[in-house]
Parts: sequence; structure tokens; C-alpha cells
Amino acid sequence: MIIVMKDKAKEKEIKQVVDRVEELGYTPHPSRGAKKMLIGIIGDLNREELIDSLGAYPGIDKLVPIMEPYKLVGRSFKDNTSIIDLGDGVTIGGKEILVMAGPCAVESEEQIIKTAAAVKKSGAKVLRGGAFKPRTSPYSFQGMQEEGLKLLKTASDETGLKVITEVVDPRDVELVGNYTDVFQIGARNMQNFYLLKEVGKSNKAVLLKRGMSATYKEFLMAAEYIMSEGNYNVILCERGIRTFETYTRNTLDLVGIPVLKKLSHLPVVIDPSHGTGQWELVTPAARGAVAMGADGLIVEVHPEPTKALSDGQQSLKFSKFTAMIDDLSQIANAVGREI
Amino acid sequence: MIIVMKDKAKEKEIKQVVDRVEELGYTPHPSRGAKKMLIGIIGDLNREELIDSLGAYPGIDKLVPIMEPYKLVGRSFKDNTSIIDLGDGVTIGGKEILVMAGPCAVESEEQIIKTAAAVKKSGAKVLRGGAFKPRTSPYSFQGMQEEGLKLLKTASDETGLKVITEVVDPRDVELVGNYTDVFQIGARNMQNFYLLKEVGKSNKAVLLKRGMSATYKEFLMAAEYIMSEGNYNVILCERGIRTFETYTRNTLDLVGIPVLKKLSHLPVVIDPSHGTGQWELVTPAARGAVAMGADGLIVEVHPEPTKALSDGQQSLKFSKFTAMIDDLSQIANAVGREI
Amino acid sequence: MIIVMKDKAKEKEIKQVVDRVEELGYTPHPSRGAKKMLIGIIGDLNREELIDSLGAYPGIDKLVPIMEPYKLVGRSFKDNTSIIDLGDGVTIGGKEILVMAGPCAVESEEQIIKTAAAVKKSGAKVLRGGAFKPRTSPYSFQGMQEEGLKLLKTASDETGLKVITEVVDPRDVELVGNYTDVFQIGARNMQNFYLLKEVGKSNKAVLLKRGMSATYKEFLMAAEYIMSEGNYNVILCERGIRTFETYTRNTLDLVGIPVLKKLSHLPVVIDPSHGTGQWELVTPAARGAVAMGADGLIVEVHPEPTKALSDGQQSLKFSKFTAMIDDLSQIANAVGREI
Amino acid sequence: MIIVMKDKAKEKEIKQVVDRVEELGYTPHPSRGAKKMLIGIIGDLNREELIDSLGAYPGIDKLVPIMEPYKLVGRSFKDNTSIIDLGDGVTIGGKEILVMAGPCAVESEEQIIKTAAAVKKSGAKVLRGGAFKPRTSPYSFQGMQEEGLKLLKTASDETGLKVITEVVDPRDVELVGNYTDVFQIGARNMQNFYLLKEVGKSNKAVLLKRGMSATYKEFLMAAEYIMSEGNYNVILCERGIRTFETYTRNTLDLVGIPVLKKLSHLPVVIDPSHGTGQWELVTPAARGAVAMGADGLIVEVHPEPTKALSDGQQSLKFSKFTAMIDDLSQIANAVGREI
Repeated sequence: MIIVMKDKAKEKEIKQVVDRVEELGYTPHPSRGAKKMLIGIIGDLNREELIDSLGAYPGIDKLVPIMEPYKLVGRSFKDNTSIIDLGDGVTIGGKEILVMAGPCAVESEEQIIKTAAAVKKSGAKVLRGGAFKPRTSPYSFQGMQEEGLKLLKTASDETGLKVITEVVDPRDVELVGNYTDVFQIGARNMQNFYLLKEVGKSNKAVLLKRGMSATYKEFLMAAEYIMSEGNYNVILCERGIRTFETYTRNTLDLVGIPVLKKLSHLPVVIDPSHGTGQWELVTPAARGAVAMGADGLIVEVHPEPTKALSDGQQSLKFSKFTAMIDDLSQIANAVGREI
Repeated sequence: MIIVMKDKAKEKEIKQVVDRVEELGYTPHPSRGAKKMLIGIIGDLNREELIDSLGAYPGIDKLVPIMEPYKLVGRSFKDNTSIIDLGDGVTIGGKEILVMAGPCAVESEEQIIKTAAAVKKSGAKVLRGGAFKPRTSPYSFQGMQEEGLKLLKTASDETGLKVITEVVDPRDVELVGNYTDVFQIGARNMQNFYLLKEVGKSNKAVLLKRGMSATYKEFLMAAEYIMSEGNYNVILCERGIRTFETYTRNTLDLVGIPVLKKLSHLPVVIDPSHGTGQWELVTPAARGAVAMGADGLIVEVHPEPTKALSDGQQSLKFSKFTAMIDDLSQIANAVGREI
Repeated sequence: MIIVMKDKAKEKEIKQVVDRVEELGYTPHPSRGAKKMLIGIIGDLNREELIDSLGAYPGIDKLVPIMEPYKLVGRSFKDNTSIIDLGDGVTIGGKEILVMAGPCAVESEEQIIKTAAAVKKSGAKVLRGGAFKPRTSPYSFQGMQEEGLKLLKTASDETGLKVITEVVDPRDVELVGNYTDVFQIGARNMQNFYLLKEVGKSNKAVLLKRGMSATYKEFLMAAEYIMSEGNYNVILCERGIRTFETYTRNTLDLVGIPVLKKLSHLPVVIDPSHGTGQWELVTPAARGAVAMGADGLIVEVHPEPTKALSDGQQSLKFSKFTAMIDDLSQIANAVGREI
Repeated sequence: MIIVMKDKAKEKEIKQVVDRVEELGYTPHPSRGAKKMLIGIIGDLNREELIDSLGAYPGIDKLVPIMEPYKLVGRSFKDNTSIIDLGDGVTIGGKEILVMAGPCAVESEEQIIKTAAAVKKSGAKVLRGGAFKPRTSPYSFQGMQEEGLKLLKTASDETGLKVITEVVDPRDVELVGNYTDVFQIGARNMQNFYLLKEVGKSNKAVLLKRGMSATYKEFLMAAEYIMSEGNYNVILCERGIRTFETYTRNTLDLVGIPVLKKLSHLPVVIDPSHGTGQWELVTPAARGAVAMGADGLIVEVHPEPTKALSDGQQSLKFSKFTAMIDDLSQIANAVGREI
């Protein structure tokens, strides 16, 4: 970290900062330029702590972090991409692009089993479906809760698909863990640190969605929370960020794929359904994702989107989903991947 | 809600939508313009449900909501500003602007008691202090937990100040409730719906912070979650939103004060500390807040900001805090309020 | 347009609005719902005018536009994608994806001629290069001006490449037009309406870059400015928008490709260089663009990026550019296009 | 500037960068930390040039600027706030808060003269009014052009008010200068550098509006453009930035007042009309502006907002304007200013 002193910082103020750095256990490296006095601090720092503590000194102009704040998620911890094993030969992070598909919410046994069979046929290996739904309005359908989890399990048993479902409350981690293969942490909970710690104590895979206004750094720090509890099976999921543009539900940050893969060894998944909010845009977005190196896709598919209790406007019908996977396999081949 | 059909929507597609609206229990009002076919739906609608369900019809161009989605938080539910009673004559929403002040985190008995005495002397009626800290890094100080709650209680007993502290986990609502007068829900948890429901079951006041990328509507819908569980003692807190500008920690949306007061009857508080992230900007921001009609302020104050374990850079020293309150009382008088 | 009256609007206020609508020459269609009074206005409206005029009535809650504001740029004006002819068989909007490449700024005869030869060899058909440079700092290199235009012409004559270069001042449109085949309007000038009108009077193709905080609608309205002067040869260029994320120079909105192509018949080009700001991200971004249906790419290429006077950090070396085009041709084939 | 090398940068790559820095005429100061190799460059740098040139080196992780990029606008160039003289004793930057008011657009002689008289009576010293209007739609009223300028002059002659009006085209600077006392540069033209240079050659005051997605730095660099041409009479105007919130027309960044005054010596004006887009929010926003230290206000006032050709929804009637100024004078007194 570089401490930049104000142009008019007095000697006394500089000394205070130097002393404080030493008191915190670091070695300060002052260096006087033509106009600016800088104080470098080298080594393994706790950046948030330093900023909180040093930021209050009146002689300081600004603090400039040099090192990245994350440890376990970074490429300097592990150089090659992590391959995460979901069991029975289903993995993510390798040559094959993993497809997760299913309805936004589990609504009935018929709905989920029908969907599971259909998406499996088209190439999906993981069934998605929400049992606990975080909804903007308290008056909207909140999900089938445990009943929904049981139906997911039934669908999984019948088809052999793995299951991913969202957990929203730290109290439910154990319950949800009894039924799912992958925990999904939703965008609204990306910085629900107690929930992150709770799934971090499990050893099941966790798909962590990027918060809608989270920077890459904050996103990776949230993954760090999970990993710091011992669970290294973390999958990053870009699902659109919030910008001034409201025509689409979110702005899908596809360039996040190469960025996250440059900064981190964790696999990266794209959610083209939430990322766009319109079923007509799901296939184009998924095409971009595959071309740009995504390790997986998570897609909303519903037997009858016009009857969906949630997210119908961004769900694909079975026939559209099948057509999309066909498209994607061509692109996957063109970029040396498989789907 | 107005359903706008595509220019090229076929009669069959229009009929499908009309039928679906009826099936959902509403009365459709089709109306054909020069270029557009519109279908109105009148009455008490569940907007999220309608959008989810109708959004998937191929003949529909867009859905235009007309009514606001909230009920209990709105001015149509209650016209005059809610005055919330925190006990012992401390209220918010009336002529007096309520000042809440204290350190970001409770760090020690000495720190919190010294601060409580100082802020009381300057005019604060509520002591703030975090015991459970949501931090960006898992390696940073996470708060003193229950020990911190006890120290807040001690400081409250000694000074007569009311207490506000953050609750971050639904499992802790009961515990925190034993020590605090006001629950604080942080910006990162604004859409942690299970936590909102949990404090909604209490009858203690809840200060709800706006999420850093939450629209006014989403903010008010989060308050609706709390109220829909029966707890009407909700205080709205604007604490800065995330924008492209990174010079300040957040962009403090002071115009949110008159907007929220126009849309809702709930009292509105400003947090100039998180809103700016720099102690030099706290007083100017607070001045604006008072001039623009805020019902309260929540301010970070620390005996020695340069030694703070958290947020030192945006905390005021006692002397600065006292000077600020003096300033603010002049402005409060000028706008017909008291502080 | 739908006028939504306030819940408490008085009869007199409703009448005022109805009268005003008639005075403006439209037919009002009042309709009373359970809670809301709505007034519809049907037909060919000037939306901006109506909003400006009606917005001031105290009884009005809000104005909800139904029709899109653009005429010439929209799919309802022209259904099939426009193919724009740049001369000598070079077109954009058809099956072939047009590649435009070259340095950010023209720096010397050697630089531009060397680059022209190299990009032509790799498949580019248009040479880009700035002669008038809009720079953030007045102390930075501002471009070679007319001298630069002449060098572009020389390079074009030697290679047969078409030329695209930016025009920043309405006074220069004629001058620049003497040397270029395509006018480029930069993001900072997207709403420089006098400049738009000036190039609108020409019949040369115009590549219009999206402003960094322009919505799709504003972007298309800027294109409408050019077309409304009679020049229909407009090419839309997405080059990244400004968001809270600062790791990349901009956030490249690749989903804008299918959105713009849905709303408009104009061809869509992606600028992966400005869109990302980092040469390592240019190829991944371009891959996504091709997979998602872009009609063209505009890419910064420099013989020696480390010596560039402008944008070196996002420029590709010749070898990287060649490798990228090879990659892209695989993806283009996979999606039924050519490059 | 600090150059941060990649963790794996080779000696050869480090040497290349050191050599290049020397070649550019600066002295590199390499310094090896525990994990990172840093190279400092001290002195009077052209930051944009350095970033453009060094950014392309493969061994470089990132470039961290330390010095601010502006010279003439900064507090290190001039410490005390600039007081700008508009003639006849009208100044901005001193104790008195300058009020500029008038219609969005000049529409007729009666309208502008009536307004001039009314706003003068309430305390305004400068008359605003647009003759050249940048409108989102080419089909909207584009202003009265030179005819409008003449009417402004007439109104000025009759009332003694100074005049501010927008110039949008470099070709019009001379013409507009014949009629106005202050040039207004609109938000959309903040980075229209040729226009900035043109008004920079004049010695009339220039009110520069912040672009809707401009950072403070970019805003100040645009002011630097004007000053670098010799015109030091620059007034900064915050008029709202673009964020995800669409309820208000823009998000008015009132904290920008203390920030800009900390970074720069130039006076700061707030535009509460464009900043909010709703006449009901104009007075609250102006109250905040005065409390937070604004040096001036620019407000839209219209004799009959419901008949306005432009921006009626955000214009105040005369009576509301008078009431607002009364309010503001109370607040001004409370903060040691006058209005």
C-alpha cells in the first residue's frame, strides 16, 4: 500500500503516520518526491484494516492499495483453473461446458419432472429450480419451501440429473443440503456474510452469483468468505449488473468471463436468463458466453412459460432450449470446447 | 397495468392474452389505437405475478405498470408522517430531528461509554455501535458479537441513551432484541427477505438502510416486507448509492429525502458517514440533510478515529461532532425544525 | 401516451388536462379505474413536446409513453436489415462481418502505411485512424489534424482499404469528408446535435458510437437526427458504457447487439478495444460479438503498441490481430456468417 | 505514478519498462517488495501520455497515478476561491449566493420580459434562457436561435439583469458572445473539446455543466481545457448525474459541492431543475445546495409552465420561485451567506 500525504502535510503529521504504521506491525518506507511525500508499506497486509485505521489521519491525501485483497480465490494461490466435481462424473471447469437448466421455481411434481426429462434430453446435466424464492414483493409466490426440495430430489432420482437450488437463510443450509448437490447463493445475498460462512462449512459445491452492484473485487472477496471456511468448491456466476439501462432487466457483463478467469482460478458460469430478462435475448447471450470462455450456463426453462409463477418472461420453452443447445454446440466446437 | 401488444400481434395472440387475464381473475379492457393495441387491467393487482406470467406471451411488446406496488408504506395507506416512539419520550418523525451517533463498531467498554457520554452531551438521543459487523474481507475484525451488545446496554444504562445496532442473521434477532431499542438492517441486507420478515415479527423499531443499488421502489418494497409482518415502526435510511463516481465511497442521494417523503409516510434518516466515506464531507452532507427535511441523522463518532478498528476515515472526533450539531441547529431553526 | 392522474386529482384538474390535450391537437380518451383516472392519447405524437408541456400540471401523477419515439431508425419503418454500401463492393449489414482496423491515432506515414498493409493482409477492409483526437487532457497529443487525413488517404490509395476517421467539429465535416469514406462520430459527441445534423447533410456513411451513458433509446434518437437530415447510411457502434465497475475501461454491452437489431434495421458494430481498454480482453470480446450477431468490428491495431501516442494499452500487435481474425472466422462459420 | 509489475514479470520485462521510462524523459525509481516489483516515476508527468504508452507492456500489472492530472483548476494552483466578475458589481464566488433564473427556452418577447421582471423582483441577478436547444428528438422545438438571443438582450436592457445562455456549436461562439454575459456549456457538450477551446479563447465567464456520467476528475479536466486557452472565468455547475434510479430525471450529486470546492478554487453552482426534473423537488434541492455551500443556483422559471415548449415539468411558477428565495435566504443566513 502507498500512503500519499497531502501537499501541505507537516513533518509532525508525517511522523504520526510513520509511527502508526510501525505500531500496526509494518515497516514504513517513506520517499519524498518533487511534490508529494509517499510512504510505502510492503508485505502481507490486511488492507481493509489499514484503510480503516489510517484513513482518519488529517495529513493523508489518499491510500493506494497495490496488492489484491484476496488470497485463496486468486491465481497466485492456484494457477490452473479449478475443476469442481459434482459427483458421478459431472464436473465443471474442464473442456466440457456444463449446462444447468430448469424452472425459476418448482411449482408442481408434474412441472419439475417434465422439465427435468426435457432438459436432460437436450444435454443438461444439472437441474435448477427454486424452492425458497427471494421476491421483491411480500405478496408474491414465495416458493414451495421443503416440499419443493423434495420434488427436486424426486426429479433427480428419476433422471440422474444433479440438483442446484438456492439457499437464502443460514438456518436452512442443513435442510437444503439434504436435497441438493450445489448450493446457489443469489445475487441479493452475495454479501450476506453469515450465509456465506455457513455454506463455507459444508463441502458441497456453491454457485455464487455476483451481486447486482458488486465489483469484481467484491465478488471475489465474497467467494473468499466461503473458501476461508474451508470449502474450495466455489463456482462464480455472472448474472447481470445494474446500470442506467432499463430496457433489459440487467446489463450482462460478458467481459466478466475473461476478467474473472484472469484474476481467479474458479470456474465461471453465465446466467443469460436473469442477465437479460427477456427470453428472446437468452440464446444470443448464451452464444456470447460460450464464445468467450464460460465454463457453464444456468438457464431458465419452463414447460409453459405463460403459466409460470415466476420469471415466465425470461424462460425458454423446451423446443427453444433444444434449438439453443444445438447452436451452442457449434460455437463450442469452434472455440475448442464441448457442450 | 397496461399491456402493449406488438404492432404485428395477430388476433389469435391478442385473444390468448385476453383469455389469460380473465383466467387470472381480472377484467381485461382492450382498446385499439391508430398503431397499437392496448389491453388495460384495472384494480388491485399483484404486479410481480402479472409480469411474470404475462411476460412470456410472444404477442406482447411490453407491460406498463400504472399503480405503485406497495400498500402499507404508501401515502395512500396513511397520509400524515408516521411518528415512531422509541420510548422515554424519544421519537422520530415529528418536529425534532433525531440524532443517532456512536462508533462504527463497539471496541471496548471504555470506548463505548466515553463516546456515549460525549454524544449525549452534544445532543444525540440514540447511541449507535456495531456488534456484528458485515465486512468485505473475511480477515477483518468481525465485531465483538454478544459481548459488544452487553457493552451497548451498559452504556445505555449509564447515559439514558437509546440504542441502535445492526442485526445481520435471522438467528440473532431475538438475542439482539434483548439489548437494542432499534434494529438496524444494513444496506447489504436490504433484500435479505428472511431477515426482514424476522424483524417484522418484532414490535421494536427497525431502521432499514437502502441497498446500494436499490431503486426507491425496491427500497419501499423492502419496508413493505417488514410492515406486512405487522411491525409498522419502520424508519427509512438513505446511506448513499453506488454510481460510476468513486471519489466518494458512495453517492449520497439527498434528493431521496423529499422523494421518499412524497411516496411514503415513514420517517427518513440520512447517514452522512457511509454516504460520503470521508470525515471532511460528513458535516456538509448533514447540513444538506437537515435543510432538505430529514427526520434524523445517524453519524459515526469515535474518541480517536485514527485508532478505530473500522471506518476511522469517516468518523468524527468529539469536537467536530459538537461543532457540527451547533451548525445544524442553526439550519434546523431556519427550516422550522429543532435538533 | 397514458396520462396517470393523481389519486386525489380534482375534477377541475382533470378537465384542465383534457382541455390542454385537445388544445395541442390530440383526442383525449379518459378512463376511470377503481383507483386511478387515466387519460389516453392516441396517434402520432411528439412525445418530448407532450411531456414538456403536460408534466407541469399539478393533478398529473405521471406520463407513460407507449409508442417508441423514433421513426426512421425503427423496424416499423423498415423491416429488413439495412445493407450499407461503402463502395467498391465493401458493404456492411450482409452475411459478411466487416472488419475495420488501425491505430487509435495517425502518428506518421510509416506507421499508418505499415498498419494498413498488415490489417489488409489479415482481412480488414476498412482502415481506422484518428486525425482529430478528443483527449481528456488538453496537454495530451491532439492528433495530426489535416496532415493525418492526408496520410490516411495515402494509405488507402496504396492498399485499396476504405477509410474511417472521426470528425469532432461541425466546421470540419467538409474537410474530413474529402479524405474519408466513413465519418466516425465519437461517444462524447453522440448528442452533439449540430455535428449530427452536419453529417446528416452528407451522403457518406456515418458510424455513430453510443454515448457512454446513453440508453438504447437515446442512441437510436441520435441516429434519427442524422437520418432526419436525409442520410440513411448510419451504422450503430456499441463501445462500452459507464458503470460502477472500473477494472475495465468501460462495460461492453454485448447484449446491445440483439437489442439494437430488434429495435432497428441499422447494422451494429462492436468496438472491443474501447469497450474493454485492455488488449488482453480484446479478442475474447470480439469472439462474443461475432457469436452474438455483430455486423462489424472496429479494432485498434498498432505496429508497436508500447510506442503508441494514444491507447497503446488496448491496441493489438499485428500478430495478435491476425490470430484473432483466425479465431473469429471459426466462430463466424459456426453462426452462419463470414469474416 | 507507480508502475506495478506482474508477480511473474521477468527481469527482461522490468528492464524494458525502466528503459522506456528513461526514454520518455523521466527518472524511474524501481523498488522490490516482498511480492511486488514497483517502479515509481516522480515529477511533472503527462499522465494520459504515460498510461497510453506504458499500458501496452506485457510485464505491467497496472499503473497507479498519484498526482492529480489538472493544473490550473486545482487548489495547488490557487488556494482561495475564485471570485468571478460578471460586470456591474455582479460576482460569483463571494459571500453572496448568485441566483440565475429564467425559462428553459426563450419562446417570445412577452414571455422573456415578463419572466425577467419577475425573477429580478425576487432577487435573481442573471437571466437564463435557451436560444439554441439541444433536444433528444430532432422533431422537438430547437429554440429561436438568433431571434432568441436578441430577445434576451432586450430583456437584459430593460431589467439590468445579466444574461446566461447556452452555446452548442463552435461556429456560434462569436454570435452568442455578442448577446450574452456568460456562456453556458451544457452537460452533453462537457467533452466537446473544440467548443471548450473556442470559449476558452474568449474572456467572458463560462458556466460549465458536468456531463451526466462525468467523474469529478473529468469535469475538472474539461474546465482545464477552457483555462488552458487563457480564460480563467470558469464556473462549475453540478446538474445531476445518471444512475440506475429513474424516478428522478437525474441524481443530483449535492456532495459534489464540498468535493469540488476541496479540489478546485472555482465557484460551484447547482441546477436543481435539471438535477431533479420535477418542480416539486426543486425547492428542497435548492435548500440543500445553499446549506452545503453552493456559490450560485440556476433555476428554471416560467410564467406558465403548463404552456412551456420545453421543460415545463421542472419549471417553477413566479409565486413558487419567490417563496423559494424567501426560504433560501433563511438558510443562507444560517450558514453565513447571503442571497
